[in-house]
Amino acid sequence: MLSSDALSSVAYGPEQIIIVLMTVGAAATWYSVPIAAVILILLAALIWSYTQVIHAYPSGGGAYLVSTENLGTIPGLISGGSLLVDYMLTVAVSTASGADAITSAIPELYKYNLGIAIVLALILMFMNLRGLRESAAFLMIPVYTFIVSTFVLLAVGVVRILSGSLPYHAPAHLGASIGGVTLILILKAFSTGSSSLTGVEAISNAVPFFKRPKEHNAALTLVMMGSILAVFFAGVVFFAYWMGLVPGHNITVIAQMANGLLGESPIGHVMFFIFQFSTALILAVAANTGYSAFPVLAFNMAKNKYMPHMFTARGDRLSYSNGIISLAAGAIVLLVIFKGQTERLIPLYAIGVFTPFTLAQVGMVVHWKKKLGNKFIFHSIPNIIGALISFSVVMILLIFRTLEIWPFFLVLPLLIFAFLRVHHHYVNVAEQLRLREGVAEHKFDGNTVIVLVGNMTNVDLGAINYARSIGDYVIALHVSTKENTQKEQEIETEFKSTFPDLHLTVIQTNYRDIIAPAARYIGLTSKDAKKRNFTTTVIIPNFIPSKPWENMFHNQTGLRLRMALNSHEDIILASYNYHLKK
Amino acid sequence: MLSSDALSSVAYGPEQIIIVLMTVGAAATWYSVPIAAVILILLAALIWSYTQVIHAYPSGGGAYLVSTENLGTIPGLISGGSLLVDYMLTVAVSTASGADAITSAIPELYKYNLGIAIVLALILMFMNLRGLRESAAFLMIPVYTFIVSTFVLLAVGVVRILSGSLPYHAPAHLGASIGGVTLILILKAFSTGSSSLTGVEAISNAVPFFKRPKEHNAALTLVMMGSILAVFFAGVVFFAYWMGLVPGHNITVIAQMANGLLGESPIGHVMFFIFQFSTALILAVAANTGYSAFPVLAFNMAKNKYMPHMFTARGDRLSYSNGIISLAAGAIVLLVIFKGQTERLIPLYAIGVFTPFTLAQVGMVVHWKKKLGNKFIFHSIPNIIGALISFSVVMILLIFRTLEIWPFFLVLPLLIFAFLRVHHHYVNVAEQLRLREGVAEHKFDGNTVIVLVGNMTNVDLGAINYARSIGDYVIALHVSTKENTQKEQEIETEFKSTFPDLHLTVIQTNYRDIIAPAARYIGLTSKDAKKRNFTTTVIIPNFIPSKPWENMFHNQTGLRLRMALNSHEDIILASYNYHLKK
Repeated sequence: MLSSDALSSVAYGPEQIIIVLMTVGAAATWYSVPIAAVILILLAALIWSYTQVIHAYPSGGGAYLVSTENLGTIPGLISGGSLLVDYMLTVAVSTASGADAITSAIPELYKYNLGIAIVLALILMFMNLRGLRESAAFLMIPVYTFIVSTFVLLAVGVVRILSGSLPYHAPAHLGASIGGVTLILILKAFSTGSSSLTGVEAISNAVPFFKRPKEHNAALTLVMMGSILAVFFAGVVFFAYWMGLVPGHNITVIAQMANGLLGESPIGHVMFFIFQFSTALILAVAANTGYSAFPVLAFNMAKNKYMPHMFTARGDRLSYSNGIISLAAGAIVLLVIFKGQTERLIPLYAIGVFTPFTLAQVGMVVHWKKKLGNKFIFHSIPNIIGALISFSVVMILLIFRTLEIWPFFLVLPLLIFAFLRVHHHYVNVAEQLRLREGVAEHKFDGNTVIVLVGNMTNVDLGAINYARSIGDYVIALHVSTKENTQKEQEIETEFKSTFPDLHLTVIQTNYRDIIAPAARYIGLTSKDAKKRNFTTTVIIPNFIPSKPWENMFHNQTGLRLRMALNSHEDIILASYNYHLKK
Repeated sequence: MLSSDALSSVAYGPEQIIIVLMTVGAAATWYSVPIAAVILILLAALIWSYTQVIHAYPSGGGAYLVSTENLGTIPGLISGGSLLVDYMLTVAVSTASGADAITSAIPELYKYNLGIAIVLALILMFMNLRGLRESAAFLMIPVYTFIVSTFVLLAVGVVRILSGSLPYHAPAHLGASIGGVTLILILKAFSTGSSSLTGVEAISNAVPFFKRPKEHNAALTLVMMGSILAVFFAGVVFFAYWMGLVPGHNITVIAQMANGLLGESPIGHVMFFIFQFSTALILAVAANTGYSAFPVLAFNMAKNKYMPHMFTARGDRLSYSNGIISLAAGAIVLLVIFKGQTERLIPLYAIGVFTPFTLAQVGMVVHWKKKLGNKFIFHSIPNIIGALISFSVVMILLIFRTLEIWPFFLVLPLLIFAFLRVHHHYVNVAEQLRLREGVAEHKFDGNTVIVLVGNMTNVDLGAINYARSIGDYVIALHVSTKENTQKEQEIETEFKSTFPDLHLTVIQTNYRDIIAPAARYIGLTSKDAKKRNFTTTVIIPNFIPSKPWENMFHNQTGLRLRMALNSHEDIILASYNYHLKK
């Protein structure tokens, strides 16, 4: 399942390379073949270096941890911040491509592309909120379907070429010299295509989820996935070249390829639909890796006090609800900003993943140096290669795609600033809360209890009974507005008949608002109590309706009073809850 | 200021009539002149009947009160519901027309029409939330500017016709027979134009705001406003006819008229801009009458328990905040649904106002009958006429514009159902809360206090000190997760050294979540306490950060615990608040 992120990139990676090359002309697309070859070499190198990460951090490494431990706080936060944004981009890119796969098969839906992507992101959010991970087995189905159907597709293509039934339509032969193709263009296309390598990180993050021997299995998975990806990537690029495919207005390259290879026969048509929907599904599963990874990263960062504590709160079914919701919200914002256009999201996606890649690989070199001393060089070779490759991609993006990736350099510093502020805040609070040496308990001489009496209902009755059980000195307080003089007398009479030995304190106010006068009186009483070494408790009578949604009809005054009194020191706020039966 | 609603309808009323007539052809537009004449007669009749309402309900009548008192609950709710929706439509129509007035002057802004309307609605919302009504004097400026500039405009037109410098461009002479003009078309145009009469209700609702002698002044205002409106309406319709104006794609009829009459000279241009912006401003003031009237109506309905109590809550500056926000939200939803197109909002606006008009006038007849017995006929004449007119408009809308007004008949029953449900709920709750005869106080034998101890900070220290001041039996409770065994021992040691004579109860849980085990323990303890005739108090230690927004970083566990315990009966929840200084 973790492979889905990498494998699914076959659905958009080759296309993105071709889109960049097309800016010069269809003839330039033959360059996609050598570019794909270089990318596959990089893939091998990255996999090699990441198997090292797996062995060094068997408890689930990830760039945030590796960078923080070996390079320090700021590199760690750069990795963490980049990855948080990148998981949002994973979801955005995968759902947008998933929508493309669906609308390539059913062109009538093309105008709803963005809506479909958003709905996909929301469906995944709800599935994850309901605790998807435990039932991850069924997610294997689309992954295997995609692998099988892609192999079948490529096999059909090979058979048709060998049997001569697939005409050669490439706009230019391999190696043809094309005017306008510059090194810059090729580097741009290469940097875009390298976004296909982003899935490598996912497996190294997830080592703990593997069966024992974990490290061995994880490494094996990585190599297997790499081999399959290599075949698919090479196959798609080759057939796109052979058939002379260029991205259409509302049909993807891979869909054109499937359509062309499978032919117009009914069986071909059915197979085309199966292929498109297995593509959409594996893209959805790929988006799901974002949903698995984001909350874990947010949790780790929150544990280190760089993100709000709420990301450590667990929802109902042990899912990291706040992280899941934040991720979905972020992904949908990105989809809307970039109108669901994959080609505009890809450069950001690439810079967001190769920055932490670079830092993690450098971190690994430092790790080996610490651990092995001078003999570190041998172990570091894959990581040094990985770091150099990743760094080159970052530099290419930085120099040649500045116009597309600048938002990343706006958002990342803001994020790091926010992380540091959050950290400062938590440290500051912890400092203030720490018990000082020699602090001991304080014995109060008694307590004053104020009950706010409204209309003399069952709620008020219960609240006063309770107040008398805890209070040394009980004040029943009623605030009356000028307009309600008659009602005030009724309440006083009823109070006297129910509690003959208790006095009802009545404040009259000219305002319509009873909050301010009540708060003023309570403030004065509490000052008085403090002088006598008494505590002050304010009891707010509430009732709990039998249906939770009915709460919106009630208790507004109680809530506002609670908010007004929260700012007073030395007052304890207590809610007396009366439960309605129907 | 109250006149603004009626007067501003000059900006869209004539145009709407012409739009309907244009469906047959430009030649049909001459019919707008006789239709306008009929509408002005209706206006006179409505004003006559509404002066009666003013005299009968000097404390501020309004259709809701008049219908409820004289016709019963359901007619009252129909009036109230219609008017609530109609005030939203007032805001939507006025801001949409205001945006039209602005973009007619500055065509470059045309594509932002809907956005401008929404921004206008939001600006009015914020002004009203800040307590606009008290400073209503400055709202007179746009009203007077509009009156003066419209008079100037019409005077220029008259001078130009008399001096012969304004050529006659009417597509057909008055009285010309035009093919395709049917009675249905004329009734449609008439029912649309009658939306200009909607402002009449506003004054009768607002009698209390007038200077003494209130009734006399209100009635005088009504007559004055009626006369001005008659002149303006007649003038605009006449010049539109004379100049042969038809609604343009992105310029209103009234703007074309102003542009044509004032000419292309620089002074004419400046005057055109002044006229357009005074039109936009008076439309904004008209929208503001919705903001004044909606919260009052919602307040009255909430007082009668047909709307949630929250509409009786007053915000900071004595404004009816919830009503204002609901109104703005409703108006913006309407603007978005109908894409800010005035002509689609107008029919709904008309049905929404003539339904309560009819009921109010019938209610007045009943009122006179009750008050004067058999002599009621004489006083009822204006009301009978008013009722017949309003009813005819309702019937015309119902029969000939069904396709445009059906949403009204979907929404209104739902609203009335909701009003009745709300009422049922409040009555049901009041019944359950009422003290039963012979109920007396209950004396408890003591109290159990449970303090939830987290990390032994200053907050926990303070909470335990407080607990001991009120408690007969104090339990300090710590819930520890399996992962935190070491921390648990630290807390126990620290607790023992601070409170040597108190025992710390520790629950160990296998879950990561501490809420469920804590709630279970508290439930059992409270059952036990109840048996011994003790009360149970749970103290949740909180700290209040020095900056309110920092709250989002903290106290999640306290909040969740509070929610979990709210469903337990016989437990009092108390918050011990520790205030951080920095």
